[in-house]
Amino acid sequence: MYSDDSLVLHTDAYQINMIYTYWKQGIDQKPVVFEAYFRKMPFNNGYVIFSGLERIVKILNQLKFTDDDIDYLQSLDLYDTEFLTYLKNWHLTATIRSAYEGEVMFNNEPLLQVEGPLVDAQLLETLLLNIINFQTLIATKAARIASVTNGDPLLEFGTRRAQELDAALWGTRAAFIGGFDATSNVRAGKLFNIPISGTHAHALVQAYHNDYDAFHAYAETHKNVVFLVDTFDTLKSGVPNAIKVAREFGNKINFQGVRIDSGDMAYLSKKVRIMLDEAGFTNAKIYASNDLDENTILNLKIQGAKIDVWGIGTKLITAYDQPALGAVYKMVSIDGDDTIKLSNNVEKISTPGKKQVWRITDSKDGKSEGDYLTFDDENPSQLETLHMFDPNHPVISKNIKNFDAQPMLHDIFVKGDLVYDLPDIITIKNYAKHSLNDLWDEYKRILNPETYPVDLSQKLYDAKMNLIHDIRNNIQEMTK
Amino acid sequence: MYSDDSLVLHTDAYQINMIYTYWKQGIDQKPVVFEAYFRKMPFNNGYVIFSGLERIVKILNQLKFTDDDIDYLQSLDLYDTEFLTYLKNWHLTATIRSAYEGEVMFNNEPLLQVEGPLVDAQLLETLLLNIINFQTLIATKAARIASVTNGDPLLEFGTRRAQELDAALWGTRAAFIGGFDATSNVRAGKLFNIPISGTHAHALVQAYHNDYDAFHAYAETHKNVVFLVDTFDTLKSGVPNAIKVAREFGNKINFQGVRIDSGDMAYLSKKVRIMLDEAGFTNAKIYASNDLDENTILNLKIQGAKIDVWGIGTKLITAYDQPALGAVYKMVSIDGDDTIKLSNNVEKISTPGKKQVWRITDSKDGKSEGDYLTFDDENPSQLETLHMFDPNHPVISKNIKNFDAQPMLHDIFVKGDLVYDLPDIITIKNYAKHSLNDLWDEYKRILNPETYPVDLSQKLYDAKMNLIHDIRNNIQEMTK
Repeated sequence: MYSDDSLVLHTDAYQINMIYTYWKQGIDQKPVVFEAYFRKMPFNNGYVIFSGLERIVKILNQLKFTDDDIDYLQSLDLYDTEFLTYLKNWHLTATIRSAYEGEVMFNNEPLLQVEGPLVDAQLLETLLLNIINFQTLIATKAARIASVTNGDPLLEFGTRRAQELDAALWGTRAAFIGGFDATSNVRAGKLFNIPISGTHAHALVQAYHNDYDAFHAYAETHKNVVFLVDTFDTLKSGVPNAIKVAREFGNKINFQGVRIDSGDMAYLSKKVRIMLDEAGFTNAKIYASNDLDENTILNLKIQGAKIDVWGIGTKLITAYDQPALGAVYKMVSIDGDDTIKLSNNVEKISTPGKKQVWRITDSKDGKSEGDYLTFDDENPSQLETLHMFDPNHPVISKNIKNFDAQPMLHDIFVKGDLVYDLPDIITIKNYAKHSLNDLWDEYKRILNPETYPVDLSQKLYDAKMNLIHDIRNNIQEMTK
Repeated sequence: MYSDDSLVLHTDAYQINMIYTYWKQGIDQKPVVFEAYFRKMPFNNGYVIFSGLERIVKILNQLKFTDDDIDYLQSLDLYDTEFLTYLKNWHLTATIRSAYEGEVMFNNEPLLQVEGPLVDAQLLETLLLNIINFQTLIATKAARIASVTNGDPLLEFGTRRAQELDAALWGTRAAFIGGFDATSNVRAGKLFNIPISGTHAHALVQAYHNDYDAFHAYAETHKNVVFLVDTFDTLKSGVPNAIKVAREFGNKINFQGVRIDSGDMAYLSKKVRIMLDEAGFTNAKIYASNDLDENTILNLKIQGAKIDVWGIGTKLITAYDQPALGAVYKMVSIDGDDTIKLSNNVEKISTPGKKQVWRITDSKDGKSEGDYLTFDDENPSQLETLHMFDPNHPVISKNIKNFDAQPMLHDIFVKGDLVYDLPDIITIKNYAKHSLNDLWDEYKRILNPETYPVDLSQKLYDAKMNLIHDIRNNIQEMTK
């Protein structure tokens, strides 16, 4: 039995097999550029919140083939011993550029770029996508939910329904970045310095056989209390007993409120609000948690539900309505030549070349005009007028003056060395908030948002068109 | 910064807060029984394949609070120092019974049971559910997919779209148990001894600029080859070049076939089959991989698609059409008294008491008659005639003679000690296969399966009804 002592084999078998071919044929060190991007917005949202960078940095910074990895590969009886020695000596020498964690990003633009030897770029693909796809998805889902709550506190409660342990842990971190305020997952609190939240479950009430004794016991042993009121009957037992205990304890506890976990949330919350108010607990909050997401929250708000704090589980932590982001990772350059992946579907054709993503903003109000993709040696900030056009419909275009152009891809590793200081989680969360703030509301609504422009420079557009033309000609040559 | 040196805090904050109350009030050692079960079948399937036990055993077998865990909890300034010492000294003393991994199980019956001190039962809830919910979901999805492929090889290709690393790793193991044959995830191959699979990606073709040079390079460096033929044009370039290279190399390689990853799979596979056959490669297989699941496979088969091997990614590894199983974990007994969680929804009311699940089979053909839940001190195998009735509709009933009754919950830990030898993965996979084989086809079809009977013994049924009645009366007392 091999130990789980490294993550370098957390990759698809074909990566190792391709690397074997490259190495045998002496092209494993060829300089290449690969870029990760996705084509379709998750949840039909207008943006994503890029997330996953910290996890990537920490893994890549110590990525190597251990003895167990090599022993396992040897046991497959597929590879030369020299190749295994080569892998054993492998270490990262690539340059990796990425959007900052928490950055608002869009479809059809690179989120992350790997430049270096073919072996490095190939080896990392699966791991990078596994992390980016999930964490970006959850941060985005969290931001959608946060966009409908008018600043109400949002608690992440999904661990038990998450897709295994890492999803619970890194998912709740992504949710915090995307706009959540706290998590129920204590390990996440410990590792990421996220506030944790939670008081008691139905089991406490069962352990004491009735609401009163359970609430009383909890109040005797905790300063801050939120009573869960739906174990037997919310209006007949839960809330009356919560009020009774809160009165008995008075200032000895901080009665934060009650939580409702089942039933008709709109009806119950209104009734509960009246009961709490009439008892004089006008500051006590009503917490709700029961398969909520941005749509149920919006509906509850329209119905006038009196819910102050939202506990969100399954629908957030699994991104229930679209549980995968489809980011791909494509070779865009090899040996200095731009390259492309064709498809019969025009939107699926990759854009060639080592690129930079420029965020174009109005230099007066800082609001975004769109993203502008260029070859990495172009610099639009030197231009007086920027001509932006839709690459799929070039007649849709605009000329922009008085703009700022900020690059979105930043050096994280340079030739294998980490050159980036990981920011703390609050910095990342605030970065996401500011990044979202620079975006017009039209791109942020949860239903039918405007499409944010992600345009190509003329040079990039021409290069793409020429490559498509050349390859199609070549295929016709082949079939003559 | 705290290190991630234990999983005991991979739990919800309210568990720790409830344990604090129990400990303060001296009831943390009260004997309780909790059971994990789910109410609604995932994917409207007729059964689930229980999975997650190995992961649970390995974690529980070394679960403790580390110094970092204690330091973190202390930093929250919520708990007594004595309580933290108590946690530091905590070790598992509960008895845990579970279905075997790979067992066919059903809704509304315990999959796993924790009997022991209240502290243990409460501490483990979140972790147990996090693991069972995901792994059982994926094993079940895999079994659904396997049920429509008539034994065609099934490859798990989903790592890049999985919900973070653990989901990729444990998900592919669950898929293997549920009926898949191999995985692309090399780490899973290493850790679980699952066959791995994968040859090359589009990047190889881009690295060599054309199909022919790429296939040639791959064939020069590998014995077993499957060429990916859709990088530029499947019929005009991919397949003709695959055939050309296969002819050139002849017996020097094992030309296993070609893989199609985009386009109209039905049309392309039929065309490709003809091309391969006409070239004399009648044994070469056609591999397909492109957002497939049981429904697309069924449709492709009906269209006469000539696909021999299926590579399944996103839709399997995320259980895309229902990405969470909703297993819950409820207290069913405390201090020897049966207990219940009420709900306005009759199907949501838990069944009280420490239970056993008996699989009732016809003693002649071994086929299942249904599952029969009893208190753990009942033994239906001693009965000559078994009266089985639907607990929601008691008039639906049958009397059974000549039956076998096998218990489904087995001791895994007894008073904290592991008493169960973990079987190897092939044993588990075969167990799942045999367990499925004992189930009538009517329960196994993917659309509108028959509902498998999960019935209660008369004693259990009566106890449940009496408890519901007593609690409803008590609530009315309270509100008088």
